[in-house]
Amino acid sequence: MIVDGKQTRPIWLDADQKTVKVIDQRQLPHRFVVADLTSVDAVIHAIREMFVRGAPLIGVTGAYGVMIAAMKGDAAGDGPAFIRQECLRLKAARPTAVNLAWGVDRVLEKVMAAGTAADRIDVARNEAAAIAEEEAENCRRLGVHGADLITSVSREKNGATVNILTHCNAGWLACIEYGTATAPIYEAFNRGVDLHVWVDETRPLNQGARLTAWELGKHGVPHTVITDNAGGHLMQHGRVDMVIVGTDRSTHTGDVANKIGTYLKALAARDNGIPFYVALPSSTFDWTMTDGVKEIPIEERNPDEVRYIQGLADGRITRVLVPPESSPAADFAFDVTPARLVTGFVTERGVCGASEAEIHGLFPEF
Amino acid sequence: MIVDGKQTRPIWLDADQKTVKVIDQRQLPHRFVVADLTSVDAVIHAIREMFVRGAPLIGVTGAYGVMIAAMKGDAAGDGPAFIRQECLRLKAARPTAVNLAWGVDRVLEKVMAAGTAADRIDVARNEAAAIAEEEAENCRRLGVHGADLITSVSREKNGATVNILTHCNAGWLACIEYGTATAPIYEAFNRGVDLHVWVDETRPLNQGARLTAWELGKHGVPHTVITDNAGGHLMQHGRVDMVIVGTDRSTHTGDVANKIGTYLKALAARDNGIPFYVALPSSTFDWTMTDGVKEIPIEERNPDEVRYIQGLADGRITRVLVPPESSPAADFAFDVTPARLVTGFVTERGVCGASEAEIHGLFPEF
Repeated sequence: MIVDGKQTRPIWLDADQKTVKVIDQRQLPHRFVVADLTSVDAVIHAIREMFVRGAPLIGVTGAYGVMIAAMKGDAAGDGPAFIRQECLRLKAARPTAVNLAWGVDRVLEKVMAAGTAADRIDVARNEAAAIAEEEAENCRRLGVHGADLITSVSREKNGATVNILTHCNAGWLACIEYGTATAPIYEAFNRGVDLHVWVDETRPLNQGARLTAWELGKHGVPHTVITDNAGGHLMQHGRVDMVIVGTDRSTHTGDVANKIGTYLKALAARDNGIPFYVALPSSTFDWTMTDGVKEIPIEERNPDEVRYIQGLADGRITRVLVPPESSPAADFAFDVTPARLVTGFVTERGVCGASEAEIHGLFPEF
Repeated sequence: MIVDGKQTRPIWLDADQKTVKVIDQRQLPHRFVVADLTSVDAVIHAIREMFVRGAPLIGVTGAYGVMIAAMKGDAAGDGPAFIRQECLRLKAARPTAVNLAWGVDRVLEKVMAAGTAADRIDVARNEAAAIAEEEAENCRRLGVHGADLITSVSREKNGATVNILTHCNAGWLACIEYGTATAPIYEAFNRGVDLHVWVDETRPLNQGARLTAWELGKHGVPHTVITDNAGGHLMQHGRVDMVIVGTDRSTHTGDVANKIGTYLKALAARDNGIPFYVALPSSTFDWTMTDGVKEIPIEERNPDEVRYIQGLADGRITRVLVPPESSPAADFAFDVTPARLVTGFVTERGVCGASEAEIHGLFPEF
């Protein structure tokens, strides 16, 4: 996507074909900083500390991590076994994100089938790049399908502003291009649909306020930042026409793991008769789990993410402590929205209901 | 209540019998600062800028505001008309809080019946003090009734820890003593019930993280600060036994206006079969409104309350900007939880269901 006139992705390979470059998203929106990843540890650190975040981007970053593992392992002369070991470490960096294991395993399989050390590196590089292009194309396609939903709401409202609520950042920063939840928004906006986005700030890490607001602003999409508490009130008063969120993992039965707080918005949407859509590339479906609330592991992160909030003070990025120093906190990163609260999934192949039958109907190969 | 060994209330009259003293709650938990209010403008400023907040405390502050108006008006020789005029200004300081108008009007009525200028001041002072004592006593009483509910959950759990979720600060800082939502918690804790409180941080102003956590910590009550997004997830996983919140205004038909986000927690409680209680002195009931969602005015505050977050950095209270400088924000202060989601009201006279019949059954004089 475009940032200040320049085509930009959140991850790319440097001209040296060895260094993986990522936007350090922890510093957005106040600073645009690019980090160089040249070791598996650096990749793990970037994933765990959330330089990169978002299901598709984590998958692509993990995939490039395998390339780095291949370069290191083969340089040390202990190729395949080393690469396998490093892949286990990569996959453990964030347990909830199904795309991470998916991306790592996909590259690993190709690498293991390659003949020589040099082949392994080339194969890993090409496969990681292929995943990135596929993710971009999937997001472009799901954007078209989702934009049709927005367009039809716009038609029902006789062209009056369509108000869309989104939670967290499932934007191009979380993907490669377009985003997931934002892809329909960008596409509908580009078609000329009059729309406005309510951006949940998304505590604790404020990905909505920091990243979604930044993205939408750069693209010129009208938006308003609200607290995570506000969505129910807006829905009660007819000020939300639809909700679109992304997901870190959704079961093939329709349960949706996404940023903590998503479930609360889904409940409010249901209580007010507002459609609640989840946008995802099919790589985010988990084809084995059937009960999301019981089975999807929910990451608990460092409580200081709750206790401290980062922002800009006097031109410097600063962290402030909010509760008393002596008060403990807990930091649950995701929750699971049961399928019964989900109106539909917006995928690269079209829109389907949140049931095993409809999901498999769209993806019969699984 | 006790702060570092000293009996403390959030508002009191100075020894001079003229100066109203309040804790400047904006600076908690990091600094304990007392502000002197000696003019109606200062009282309005303290209410609007939230030196004081919470339904009962706003009512008492407004009541003392009438005393100050009487002192000023009578000193200027234009007593009653001036006092009436000032009361209108006082009541407009925060539109959602029904206690403000209630407290102001109650003192005003007595003042208007007084004979002389000196009487007016004395009557106002005594009536404001009486309201404060009544509020303290009401909170004490509702605490006893609410603690019975907690005690019975504790019994059902065979003495295992009772996990209570609360939103915002409906603690003694919001009242005079004990609090509303916290009164049952303090009382049950003092009885020796094993309990733990999940404290919603309560964006935008973080009254949960800043004030409830501080209060509970000072009293030694086990608690954990969580984001407002986390409650639904905790309820899905059996980690919340009951929800207790306060209210800024509840209709006599059972609809509850409280801090923005309360509605979302009520939805999650309902979805998970968890009791959702609202603790209030009966002065917080609005005996005229019947449809809370449609009729209760919801205050929209300065969007910078959403954009900026205050906390401690390097020992200094600092405000940080979270979203891009160019992104607009909106700040809705309250929402309304419909009666159908409320298990019961905890009042100074006992517990009742959230229906007009049950509420009037407990308060037949209205």
